Amino acid sequence: MSEKTVAILGATGVVGQQMLQCLEERNFPVGRLVPLASERSVGKPVTFRGEDVPCQLAAADAFEGVDIVLGAADDATARALLPEAVKRGAVCVDNSHAFRLEPDVPLVVPEVNAADIAAHHGIIANPNCATIIGLVPVWPLHQAAGLTRLIVSTYQAASGAGKPGLDELVREIRCVAAGEPVGESAPFQYQLAENLIPQIGGFNEEGYTSEEMKMQNEGRKIMHLPELRVNCTCVRVPVVRSHSESITCEFERPISVDEARAILEAAPGVKVVDDPATSRYPMPLETSDQDLIYVGRLRRDLSAPEGVSSLTFWCCGDQIRKGAATNAVQIAEYLV
Amino acid sequence: MSEKTVAILGATGVVGQQMLQCLEERNFPVGRLVPLASERSVGKPVTFRGEDVPCQLAAADAFEGVDIVLGAADDATARALLPEAVKRGAVCVDNSHAFRLEPDVPLVVPEVNAADIAAHHGIIANPNCATIIGLVPVWPLHQAAGLTRLIVSTYQAASGAGKPGLDELVREIRCVAAGEPVGESAPFQYQLAENLIPQIGGFNEEGYTSEEMKMQNEGRKIMHLPELRVNCTCVRVPVVRSHSESITCEFERPISVDEARAILEAAPGVKVVDDPATSRYPMPLETSDQDLIYVGRLRRDLSAPEGVSSLTFWCCGDQIRKGAATNAVQIAEYLV
Repeated sequence: MSEKTVAILGATGVVGQQMLQCLEERNFPVGRLVPLASERSVGKPVTFRGEDVPCQLAAADAFEGVDIVLGAADDATARALLPEAVKRGAVCVDNSHAFRLEPDVPLVVPEVNAADIAAHHGIIANPNCATIIGLVPVWPLHQAAGLTRLIVSTYQAASGAGKPGLDELVREIRCVAAGEPVGESAPFQYQLAENLIPQIGGFNEEGYTSEEMKMQNEGRKIMHLPELRVNCTCVRVPVVRSHSESITCEFERPISVDEARAILEAAPGVKVVDDPATSRYPMPLETSDQDLIYVGRLRRDLSAPEGVSSLTFWCCGDQIRKGAATNAVQIAEYLV
Repeated sequence: MSEKTVAILGATGVVGQQMLQCLEERNFPVGRLVPLASERSVGKPVTFRGEDVPCQLAAADAFEGVDIVLGAADDATARALLPEAVKRGAVCVDNSHAFRLEPDVPLVVPEVNAADIAAHHGIIANPNCATIIGLVPVWPLHQAAGLTRLIVSTYQAASGAGKPGLDELVREIRCVAAGEPVGESAPFQYQLAENLIPQIGGFNEEGYTSEEMKMQNEGRKIMHLPELRVNCTCVRVPVVRSHSESITCEFERPISVDEARAILEAAPGVKVVDDPATSRYPMPLETSDQDLIYVGRLRRDLSAPEGVSSLTFWCCGDQIRKGAATNAVQIAEYLV
């Protein structure tokens, strides 16, 4: 496997930092690393394989000679710079929302649709974190029984709002512990410590948030199910870095709990943690810094009308790893 | 209105203390207060209308001359003592689970089935907190459109585990803020700070917890819908005292979002807080120490199959007040 020149666009952010760690852990064949950042971080070093590598300015000419770009920047930066990288011959795996729904851009969860990677035209999009974490277990069940409807309530970690979100939760927990007022809560709309915020992203005219619509719109594209109906409620919770989801799936064909459990136990990217007798189930503290999606609380949907095949489960996954960095590096592995 | 002798069984607990406050706030006609507690709290004073009243031992003869008992004790204590109170002529409003599903015991959310109170034989049961908080908004929608299916994911506060739960969350948040290990987490199964625990109560053979089954079994009895199908996932979250719920309701008849909103705005016990444009929606911090159930994020269920009438919303309510003490005092008001 020949070594590649790999650029990280947004190398100093939470996802960019995690991408560096994933490249290292997974022995990705990095010949030369090009960490890219905004003006104020130029010259600041990132650590890779024990060495300090200074950040360069994220600009078009920085992509000269780069083979693979891992994008961990915001939508505007991705939109401005990744086409420049493609022009210079790089292939980009982008974690922003900018290109996800463009028809000529594959949107990939490797456990689901790795085959779509081959059709890229220079950019492959990494899906939304809550979407990745939900689809890893939903997909093998769909393959077995034919998914027709998804009802999801999420419990999303502070890390979904990046390093500012992580720092803010830490700050707020210190305030609460000290009995001090929390004050301004940016990047969150309201205090998150000891609270829940049922808004992630902006609202559409039907009252759904952009985060909620991603589960349907990205899910349709990733699973090649253009008619899939998804009802999603996204809620920010005072948890550091793992998202959790309460999921109800309806299927075309009957599927028993035992069948579903066997399927999930054999599914790539999934770890079944489901033993009520010993109070074992997925929890966000346990999935922090793990790459697998933990699945448990698997059971029959008691509310299913006569003749409707439906299951309910609970899953947790690290938002920064499988929800972002690990998924992107997995895609890059298919490119080399 | 003649004054009553009112006993509080479990007067020193979180719910018992809140009952005292509710009696005071709502000007309940208390002639004499009889706070009852276990042996170790006998003589300990509770405060009522600015006066200290010493706790008496919770035992059968303490109910002599008592008109109304508000029960805030555990199931075993309720089972042992409330029949003794009834024998002595008292009427009991009990917050424990002991009598809720007994056929001759009304189970009452006053906004839903106050008429059932009249059929009591000395004991009226106060429902499970998450059930009360969910049903207050579900009921008026059912009256308009005929509820057929409920899918609920809860986000339940530490206070649901009583004073030990409240104290434990405070302790854990201090540990987390100080960077210290949390250690033993009783009464919770695992650390709750910065975590989520998808277990409240024990599991049945289908993998549902007792808390999850309450939503179906108590909901059926309260709403007189013996066939109602409920799929509930109950999750403990690091929030102090308000429960939140993500609810999807299917109905027999069509009901638009606008109709539902108008119905909820007119519904007793409900406050609609739902303005996406200004990021207004219910949050547990805002409903703490409030009696109303706040409802928002009301929208069409995008996952509903063709021809199925279905809505989704989010609600929050104070677990100690409307989820327990306020609801019990409201029932007692119907008795006087």
